[in-house]
Amino acid sequence: MTNPLHEAARLAWPVVGDLMTAGALPILPFGAQEQHGPHLPLATDTIMADGVSRGIARNIGGLLLPAVPYGQTTDNMAFPGTVALSFDTTRAIAVDVAEAVKHHGAKGFVIVNGDFGNRAPLALAARQISDAGLRTLVVNYPGMLEIAQQLCTTEPAGFGLYHADEFETSIVLALQPDDVEMARAVAEYPEFPPTFPSEPPDLREISASGVFGDPRPATPELGRRLLAALVAEATTLVTAFRESLPA
Amino acid sequence: MTNPLHEAARLAWPVVGDLMTAGALPILPFGAQEQHGPHLPLATDTIMADGVSRGIARNIGGLLLPAVPYGQTTDNMAFPGTVALSFDTTRAIAVDVAEAVKHHGAKGFVIVNGDFGNRAPLALAARQISDAGLRTLVVNYPGMLEIAQQLCTTEPAGFGLYHADEFETSIVLALQPDDVEMARAVAEYPEFPPTFPSEPPDLREISASGVFGDPRPATPELGRRLLAALVAEATTLVTAFRESLPA
Amino acid sequence: MTNPLHEAARLAWPVVGDLMTAGALPILPFGAQEQHGPHLPLATDTIMADGVSRGIARNIGGLLLPAVPYGQTTDNMAFPGTVALSFDTTRAIAVDVAEAVKHHGAKGFVIVNGDFGNRAPLALAARQISDAGLRTLVVNYPGMLEIAQQLCTTEPAGFGLYHADEFETSIVLALQPDDVEMARAVAEYPEFPPTFPSEPPDLREISASGVFGDPRPATPELGRRLLAALVAEATTLVTAFRESLPA
Amino acid sequence: MTNPLHEAARLAWPVVGDLMTAGALPILPFGAQEQHGPHLPLATDTIMADGVSRGIARNIGGLLLPAVPYGQTTDNMAFPGTVALSFDTTRAIAVDVAEAVKHHGAKGFVIVNGDFGNRAPLALAARQISDAGLRTLVVNYPGMLEIAQQLCTTEPAGFGLYHADEFETSIVLALQPDDVEMARAVAEYPEFPPTFPSEPPDLREISASGVFGDPRPATPELGRRLLAALVAEATTLVTAFRESLPA
Amino acid sequence: MTNPLHEAARLAWPVVGDLMTAGALPILPFGAQEQHGPHLPLATDTIMADGVSRGIARNIGGLLLPAVPYGQTTDNMAFPGTVALSFDTTRAIAVDVAEAVKHHGAKGFVIVNGDFGNRAPLALAARQISDAGLRTLVVNYPGMLEIAQQLCTTEPAGFGLYHADEFETSIVLALQPDDVEMARAVAEYPEFPPTFPSEPPDLREISASGVFGDPRPATPELGRRLLAALVAEATTLVTAFRESLPA
Amino acid sequence: MTNPLHEAARLAWPVVGDLMTAGALPILPFGAQEQHGPHLPLATDTIMADGVSRGIARNIGGLLLPAVPYGQTTDNMAFPGTVALSFDTTRAIAVDVAEAVKHHGAKGFVIVNGDFGNRAPLALAARQISDAGLRTLVVNYPGMLEIAQQLCTTEPAGFGLYHADEFETSIVLALQPDDVEMARAVAEYPEFPPTFPSEPPDLREISASGVFGDPRPATPELGRRLLAALVAEATTLVTAFRESLPA
Repeated sequence: MTNPLHEAARLAWPVVGDLMTAGALPILPFGAQEQHGPHLPLATDTIMADGVSRGIARNIGGLLLPAVPYGQTTDNMAFPGTVALSFDTTRAIAVDVAEAVKHHGAKGFVIVNGDFGNRAPLALAARQISDAGLRTLVVNYPGMLEIAQQLCTTEPAGFGLYHADEFETSIVLALQPDDVEMARAVAEYPEFPPTFPSEPPDLREISASGVFGDPRPATPELGRRLLAALVAEATTLVTAFRESLPA
Repeated sequence: MTNPLHEAARLAWPVVGDLMTAGALPILPFGAQEQHGPHLPLATDTIMADGVSRGIARNIGGLLLPAVPYGQTTDNMAFPGTVALSFDTTRAIAVDVAEAVKHHGAKGFVIVNGDFGNRAPLALAARQISDAGLRTLVVNYPGMLEIAQQLCTTEPAGFGLYHADEFETSIVLALQPDDVEMARAVAEYPEFPPTFPSEPPDLREISASGVFGDPRPATPELGRRLLAALVAEATTLVTAFRESLPA
Repeated sequence: MTNPLHEAARLAWPVVGDLMTAGALPILPFGAQEQHGPHLPLATDTIMADGVSRGIARNIGGLLLPAVPYGQTTDNMAFPGTVALSFDTTRAIAVDVAEAVKHHGAKGFVIVNGDFGNRAPLALAARQISDAGLRTLVVNYPGMLEIAQQLCTTEPAGFGLYHADEFETSIVLALQPDDVEMARAVAEYPEFPPTFPSEPPDLREISASGVFGDPRPATPELGRRLLAALVAEATTLVTAFRESLPA
Repeated sequence: MTNPLHEAARLAWPVVGDLMTAGALPILPFGAQEQHGPHLPLATDTIMADGVSRGIARNIGGLLLPAVPYGQTTDNMAFPGTVALSFDTTRAIAVDVAEAVKHHGAKGFVIVNGDFGNRAPLALAARQISDAGLRTLVVNYPGMLEIAQQLCTTEPAGFGLYHADEFETSIVLALQPDDVEMARAVAEYPEFPPTFPSEPPDLREISASGVFGDPRPATPELGRRLLAALVAEATTLVTAFRESLPA
Repeated sequence: MTNPLHEAARLAWPVVGDLMTAGALPILPFGAQEQHGPHLPLATDTIMADGVSRGIARNIGGLLLPAVPYGQTTDNMAFPGTVALSFDTTRAIAVDVAEAVKHHGAKGFVIVNGDFGNRAPLALAARQISDAGLRTLVVNYPGMLEIAQQLCTTEPAGFGLYHADEFETSIVLALQPDDVEMARAVAEYPEFPPTFPSEPPDLREISASGVFGDPRPATPELGRRLLAALVAEATTLVTAFRESLPA
Repeated sequence: MTNPLHEAARLAWPVVGDLMTAGALPILPFGAQEQHGPHLPLATDTIMADGVSRGIARNIGGLLLPAVPYGQTTDNMAFPGTVALSFDTTRAIAVDVAEAVKHHGAKGFVIVNGDFGNRAPLALAARQISDAGLRTLVVNYPGMLEIAQQLCTTEPAGFGLYHADEFETSIVLALQPDDVEMARAVAEYPEFPPTFPSEPPDLREISASGVFGDPRPATPELGRRLLAALVAEATTLVTAFRESLPA
């Protein structure tokens, strides 16, 4: 039996007020509008961050905030449809949301990040927020490498690099199957230029399709197993964080 | 027969690339996470902006961008669950999204705004974006007053003020009925302090429930009619804008 | 018998110190350097904001601060002589002046705004200032519509739009008659484009003369009556504000 | 016979348009709202900058812009009535005004500065403006030391330091005699702390009255002579600047 | 035979002018003032970044710029003597230096980073600089993990974590032996909290000494070998970058 | 017998911690990478600020911080090798370093400035820092004019202007003789344009060599005497500052 899911977007203010009073931890999924090859939707990172956040929120009785559907993805801007927020805007969104939940009495704040480019601005935001008195945790899919290595059948295109491949495709197949066009899925194992990633890259010059790896063996069933494993690891982390907060 | 809806979040990049090449106008719904009384969900403004945007996008073959689920709603921050972005963050999001669609070749940009507090930052963003070379239209529900006056049975709490009342409640009943708790709906016609709105208000001091007006007569059927009228007016505006753009 | 006028620009610091100690409310007129047709001076908005402020200051024994002679008037920049401050500069001036009067012990702060474009930055400034602990009121000519409708003989060019017309021209004739060239006054009732004001406008494309309405029937006598009515309404508002301040 | 004075605040836009087309150089007086002892008005720096600017404008047929009545005067904030803009706001005002006159076709831009604290932000603004393509001159009363030394009967309180003394008092007596209270004039020759000015000072700790020097021998006649000398020196400088501009 | 070292700090402008004309690549070492245990100097990161930069500059005939001796090291601020620049200041320094070398004709720009906390701001700076037209490479000690694993006798305290341990201590012993107090060297293998590094850490709560690992076996000879290996790897990277630049 | 020199860059954190506890005053040399003629190194200002700081630190037992090797030197950007930080970056560095030493318990903060262009941003930083609670002194070589006048054999190129001349060259000869190429030293006494320095200058248009004055008579012995005099004057100032700090 799972807990009910508390979705702040779908609740009225008095209900959220009661949840905040009861100590529910606010969880913010942070996604991106970013190319994910010819077969995955542009919202892939948002879908995944939201999916993992829902799992965590259920497990700990947290308060799921609306997912931010844009993020810092400048490296992908050569692919149509990608919409990059600037570093400073990305940071500012996280800081503003944190100030709001702090105002409403939160003792801690959790951000679940679905996009590589968001890591730096969210880490910086977390520092600012923490220094301003609200302890903040940024969840970047802990255990992802081990989980992918254990459950996927194909190799990633680079160390720790999972983008539009078997791993991500399976998870989107599990969460939003109608938005995946498996017939268009292609494999691409790009050769990286010697200066990657020390020079800011234009990823379209590296992968023409936008795929890094091989999405073709992806299945919804694998996606469900990957998601369950990601949620389990993330829940462990968030639980440790929650238990470390002052009562 | 209606056009198909092009949802950028659900499409892969080559499809969006083709749409941009074909001249599809990008449409950004801008919502808010803001209290709307004890019976409406906090995402009410996002739901409405997204709903109107879908209608416009279908009517003109536009490209619907993911809705921004947060906005400038400082005046409501005394109500739990409200999450206000700062003025500058709100402006920055609009500017960043505009720069992205401009980068991908858009000739114009449409923002559909669902929250009163977003008006000033979005107008400023539109000015900046336009001055930087991308013509931009901000749609603030044109014709709303006449439509509400004509179709609603109750009076608004103030001139042009529709918040958690029959008007908004009906539209959310039409779009997302599961998130409305009509049993909790109450009417409130607050007495405004003499300095309202010349002094920045704390709206909770004005309306204890967060309702302005009377939501109780709201029905899904009325919501559908209101929504259709709003979409029709907005489509006329956006069509005029589109036709004024250079080919 | 009227009160004396306390003009901070013309007083020495010990006198202002005594007035602040006695609780005089500081009043900041915020104007603009903006085109007002071929017959009115570019400082029209400053002249009017200053004129109304003088009336209020006399009525309540307030401390009149030097009028800011520039404002946010980007929409008029196609007319030579218009000088637009940026949104952020406009906001910053108001915030800085507020911090100064707060430093000197003010319990409240009043801004009298003479320019439409200043509304958004001054409202934002008022929010920032209020959140920082100094209650702030922005006076945007309350009652203007009713007053103009009642006393003027010509129709405005649009709802709530009074620019270089009978209304404004009369008031400048009352306050600074030497700077009005009635011989050059022309009427212009522009046709507004369908996207006005949803798209940031270039007002010169809308009105070639810069006039909106008909200034020709303007008289100094009408100006004195308009001004008296504006001052009376504004004084009521400011008095309510002052009485709501903590002692 | 002197030239007419072109005051942008008092002219309509077509007249200013003609002046700009004819190459009139825009001149911006930058003042301050700053304590000047118990006998001089807080606007002293504005009065002087405006007075000198009028002289220059007449001499060269320039376009006098409205004087900015606030400036960077943090060091005087312990005296009631002083209103300090921040460094960044001061800079931003100058930059914004410059962008406007550049937009209207100016080939050069002149700022006449009346306040010591404005020097750094205006110099920085001039650099930014110049780098952006509009040549800019900041006039800080050239020749002031020699002129004061030659014409005044009293010594300044420090090298190059003229504040509320015989020099400034005489000029305000010449320009705005009604605002001077000679009966309250006192002399003060403060002892400067050893770290002055290497540590940011609170000037009220140094001079209790706010006077630096001896204002008592001041006369309107001396003021007229000082002003004439300042205007003559400044005109020479501005003329050299104007002649160096491209045609 | 090695090339001469071109140190911009020690050369006169005409010499640097000739080097720039000849296409010398500017190399900026970016260090930090950051605790490195009780035995290493606070400038350790600067010493190392400068040392590696000298090697690269010699190998490729580059132009060594003065090392920035401060960086982004907030996580260490609980240790006295640590001086953290903010994220934005760190970024701004890199951007400003880049603009200068671009102004002088550089075709590319290399930053050699010595501090973990600088990675994010320098990556962001590199993106900004590159987007502004100057290709930029950030060198974060490529091959460090393999080199340390191969040559050091002790294990690091965490994956990829080399701080005040055998690795760093040996290099400082090689470069600046007088500033190392080996008698104070202690080993510390901290237990990391479960939320590390997902929550912004206070490193002093994790390691009381500031050491991560075991510095005791460090020797100057090992330092020289480590440094040579780091320089060789970095030179390969920079050479690839240089060869990819347009002629 | 002189005190030992406490160099924060070369000490480990516990040692600096003890010094801070004992009340050592932190001293930050602020230099520049700026052209100094064909015979002096680009780091001249850094070398001098560092040299003076070392003398002060020894005399008062202060804590010498690492010199900032870049500064605000836009006026010299036409000379290759000059690297100008922006005004805001220069200010931000000083503010960040101050916040760090304040965090570690400093009661006061001393900046020794070696570059004319740094004066304004450092004065502004000092104001911000002081207002934030850390008293701050900016040392701009007090007594320099008298010292130069007394000890040098040649005249400066302008009042208070010492740049790459006998004065500066002698001091660099004393501090870093290997970096001076006396064979290339030339004298240049430029004719200043009439608008200098009221218009932001390009110094290369004024002095082709970058020299202002005559460096040829410079000697190391003179440099030592000049340096000793500068250090003595600065020590007097810093001592007065230190004695004025609360215990």
